[in-house]
Amino acid sequence: MKSCGVIVEYNPFHNGHLYHLKKAKKHADADCMIAIMSGNFLQRGEPAIIDKWHRTEAALRGGADLVVELPFLYAVQHSDFFSKGAIQTLAELGVDSVCFGSENGDISAFTKAYEHMHKWKEEYEVALRQYLNEGLSYPEASRLGYEAIKFPSGTIDLSQPNNILGYSYVKQLLTYAPEVEPLTVLRKNNHFHDEDITGSVASATSIRKELLAKGEMSSDAQTTIPSTTEEQLQKYKDGHGLWHEWEAYFHLLQYKILTMEESTLRCFHGVEEGIEYRLKRAIKEATSFHEFLMKLKTKRYTWTRLQRTLVHILVGTDKLEASQLLRATPPPYARVLGMNDSGKKYLRMIKKETTIPVITQPQQLESEMLDLEARAAAAYYSVLSPAIRVRALKKEYGAPVIL
Amino acid sequence: MKSCGVIVEYNPFHNGHLYHLKKAKKHADADCMIAIMSGNFLQRGEPAIIDKWHRTEAALRGGADLVVELPFLYAVQHSDFFSKGAIQTLAELGVDSVCFGSENGDISAFTKAYEHMHKWKEEYEVALRQYLNEGLSYPEASRLGYEAIKFPSGTIDLSQPNNILGYSYVKQLLTYAPEVEPLTVLRKNNHFHDEDITGSVASATSIRKELLAKGEMSSDAQTTIPSTTEEQLQKYKDGHGLWHEWEAYFHLLQYKILTMEESTLRCFHGVEEGIEYRLKRAIKEATSFHEFLMKLKTKRYTWTRLQRTLVHILVGTDKLEASQLLRATPPPYARVLGMNDSGKKYLRMIKKETTIPVITQPQQLESEMLDLEARAAAAYYSVLSPAIRVRALKKEYGAPVIL
Repeated sequence: MKSCGVIVEYNPFHNGHLYHLKKAKKHADADCMIAIMSGNFLQRGEPAIIDKWHRTEAALRGGADLVVELPFLYAVQHSDFFSKGAIQTLAELGVDSVCFGSENGDISAFTKAYEHMHKWKEEYEVALRQYLNEGLSYPEASRLGYEAIKFPSGTIDLSQPNNILGYSYVKQLLTYAPEVEPLTVLRKNNHFHDEDITGSVASATSIRKELLAKGEMSSDAQTTIPSTTEEQLQKYKDGHGLWHEWEAYFHLLQYKILTMEESTLRCFHGVEEGIEYRLKRAIKEATSFHEFLMKLKTKRYTWTRLQRTLVHILVGTDKLEASQLLRATPPPYARVLGMNDSGKKYLRMIKKETTIPVITQPQQLESEMLDLEARAAAAYYSVLSPAIRVRALKKEYGAPVIL
Repeated sequence: MKSCGVIVEYNPFHNGHLYHLKKAKKHADADCMIAIMSGNFLQRGEPAIIDKWHRTEAALRGGADLVVELPFLYAVQHSDFFSKGAIQTLAELGVDSVCFGSENGDISAFTKAYEHMHKWKEEYEVALRQYLNEGLSYPEASRLGYEAIKFPSGTIDLSQPNNILGYSYVKQLLTYAPEVEPLTVLRKNNHFHDEDITGSVASATSIRKELLAKGEMSSDAQTTIPSTTEEQLQKYKDGHGLWHEWEAYFHLLQYKILTMEESTLRCFHGVEEGIEYRLKRAIKEATSFHEFLMKLKTKRYTWTRLQRTLVHILVGTDKLEASQLLRATPPPYARVLGMNDSGKKYLRMIKKETTIPVITQPQQLESEMLDLEARAAAAYYSVLSPAIRVRALKKEYGAPVIL
């Protein structure tokens, strides 16, 4: 049974994802498509529009055979840790290949870039440090660092943000799991952070923006997602009363930051370089999440970095614990969020070969990483009304989605 | 200029308080009535129905000349610390007497009880420890302890909870401030924890219950409060959208407890004897504050003790910091919440004699006790809508109420 891994957020699962799964399956000649998916909080430091269970069901109905959770601590991270968590988990699950979408579509452009980077690592790091010392943000400094080491033609352009994640996957694969084949397929929509819907393949960002602005399913949104996703979005809203976005959490964040001393804020993952003082000052005056971010943003602190830090404050990710957990290799477990028959069959097949526990419910294992996951779930659901919240929290300890 | 101190919560200021102020002023032959008042959270571990500024104005309009804040850390405590904070602050402000309401009306019954207690202290403590070891709550164990040392006739009955606060005042006065005269006046309504309104002098508990149940001013409530209190209650509700009660904070408490590890919960003042595990378990299932308390309550943990602990969790009172601050004598400052001309005149008079700073705005002093006060205010106002919350938070650093 041949398997292929994909690294996803499915926030929400849309036509581009459907296309990618189909193409990847064909390209990898796979019998089982394994999606490792962020849970309730996402890489850019945002709550998912609907919870992981409803996104899992949409993924299974859209072509995934097995959905595994990327633990919260890896999911809300810059590309290095995000990729490390995803690739290592997929490798532990014995995938034959990992396939990601790219604007290039040629895997050798990524592997060659990795070789070039490997050779010029020191020069890159000198340049990176210099730009960081000048007060630039990490993405901007690394972009200039990549420019400094001049990638030869035939390699991807790492100064383009859209290439960074794919590059990180390839780097992690070549470093930690050389037995897994890296694959890429051409992305149908090249602009995956587009703000507006322009056709039937739109960015998840534009679809969320449309849904949250309208507050209900719109015909524009409908054209961009499979009907199975539409069902899950509707079902979530009917059962939980909302689609999630940062603004709904603002009062909790404000309450938390205002009732903490700077010295306590400093203990959260991502709170560095005295930003705790800015946080306390800015939140006193802000009346919305957006206004808060506008007050916080500087050349050095990008919107995404700030959002990630705020997610870790919201959830209460302890800095020391996080750094210990992130150092551990491989991840402590793989947690199945959902599967169909092929997924089940695959799991049975690999059962004896995996070195990390494969679990379907968190109570099957004692792990700090899972305790953190439970806190993330509690934070995510804390904007629901009381009875719905209690029910949603129980789901965290329930069975996975079986199709 | 002769002054008399009263120790109050005014939650809200009612006809019984009006009567007490008038009687006390006469009994003490005072020119200036100084009320030391709890801020936004109260001794029984509850948010005040309206904030300290509106309660201060009601107090000034009802006969107080100077309103001083009992710092949050003393205010939300059992009778010993509560009395210590209040009496020591009043003593530092140079009051000639302190006058409290009682069911007895005879101060010698309190002073004699203190002498008896002083003599039989050891026997009392042996009995107290024994009952605590049997798993009884502190109030119940101390009640039986008092019974064991048999108070002679002509002393107050300490096994009656209503006598405990008055007794604590007298004890603190005789121990820390023998130069201040203890006075008592007969309370007009003897049942100050009555649940229902029965006449024009009703308990604050029954008035709050009536107001919160109706959600608006009712004719029953109107008969029990001066029109000036009615104005403040109405003004607060119009400007802030609500009257405060625990249920409005439940989602914040649930969010906070669920996103904290037991080891972090244990760092809060009042979280002792493994109750952190009960807290985490119970709050997962609870859909309201009331339901949560019902799940938590045991023979050992009284409703009031639990509520106090939950206020300290809500505000984030650090256990170590609290124990250091509570040990300090006298309190680090006296903060004026409001005054009229007599109050102003009195303050000018004592200015050179007080050994602790008398402040009107928190930014006039660096103090951990004031930092904690700011966090308590932030927690208190966190249930308001965003723009109103920002405005209310600013008030914490604004000028006192001047009549």
